Amino acid sequence: MAYIQVPEGVPGIRSLVMFRPDTGKPLYELAQVLLRGESTLSEAERELIAAYTSSRNQCIFCMSSHAAASRCLYGEDKKIVDEVLMDMQQANISDKLKALLKIAGKVQVLGKEVTEDDTSMARKHGVTDREIHDTVLIAAAFSMFNRYVDGLASWTPTDPAVYEEMGQRMARGYVLPKQ
Amino acid sequence: MAYIQVPEGVPGIRSLVMFRPDTGKPLYELAQVLLRGESTLSEAERELIAAYTSSRNQCIFCMSSHAAASRCLYGEDKKIVDEVLMDMQQANISDKLKALLKIAGKVQVLGKEVTEDDTSMARKHGVTDREIHDTVLIAAAFSMFNRYVDGLASWTPTDPAVYEEMGQRMARGYVLPKQ
Repeated sequence: MAYIQVPEGVPGIRSLVMFRPDTGKPLYELAQVLLRGESTLSEAERELIAAYTSSRNQCIFCMSSHAAASRCLYGEDKKIVDEVLMDMQQANISDKLKALLKIAGKVQVLGKEVTEDDTSMARKHGVTDREIHDTVLIAAAFSMFNRYVDGLASWTPTDPAVYEEMGQRMARGYVLPKQ
Repeated sequence: MAYIQVPEGVPGIRSLVMFRPDTGKPLYELAQVLLRGESTLSEAERELIAAYTSSRNQCIFCMSSHAAASRCLYGEDKKIVDEVLMDMQQANISDKLKALLKIAGKVQVLGKEVTEDDTSMARKHGVTDREIHDTVLIAAAFSMFNRYVDGLASWTPTDPAVYEEMGQRMARGYVLPKQ
């Protein structure tokens, strides 16, 4: 049970933004612009960065839901998601995406962990300023969402089917739930 | 120098939201509603939670600027801020604020660190659901802001006078800088 009185039967962050919609509004807007806005990174890749960060923060709710969204967006390449969550270095992904996930992993630890070497290596694989910016902000934002969801002990469903359905909804975009 | 091409001579997060204003907008809106919106926690206390979290994340820019904002808002009680940053447990603050800062400190580590005991103890000192929610979200949000600012190596001024002026501006509210 959550530490505060949130609507019953509503999982994760949805229950928290229903508890306080005026803080929920900028949180959902941030997710929408960052994960669904115009970008040279695909929506599937951005959801993967979110799931990877959440996995490192041991946030089962965010990891499961954003992994589901990423699988849904990757379509027939969906096994990439599980490869990355299992062992990022060995996953069958581009060196560019690997360099970005490495940066995300360092941001998850602490901002100061990211070095000039990390960004230089990423640039060698064709990464742009905007892609570095967005990767750092996605990893930073999920370091917030993960702490918000787990710090208040919001409900984490255990049925994989629940996350699959959630992932399909999330793939269509982030809309603040109605009261 | 920052890892990406941000406007020169603009410190910290301001340079980053100028680089990408469409993500900056929800970030500033979140800070405004969370730190300046209606609350039973004073603005000085909320800025103190932000500075305390930033200090634990070793983010000099956010710690110095939010400590300055908190000092400005505390007025003649401003020495509280430095006491908390030096040694929170020994600081001359209420047991209620101490219980909230303890929760913020746990959120800074990881969401799952917060226990039922922490929230029960806080309630014994009169803390409400909304105050627990806001404390967790402030500590979570600064775990994002800190990583965003340091992960991109944005400019951290070293002159205390710069932060004092910044704190006075922040005390009046969070407004997205013009391009």
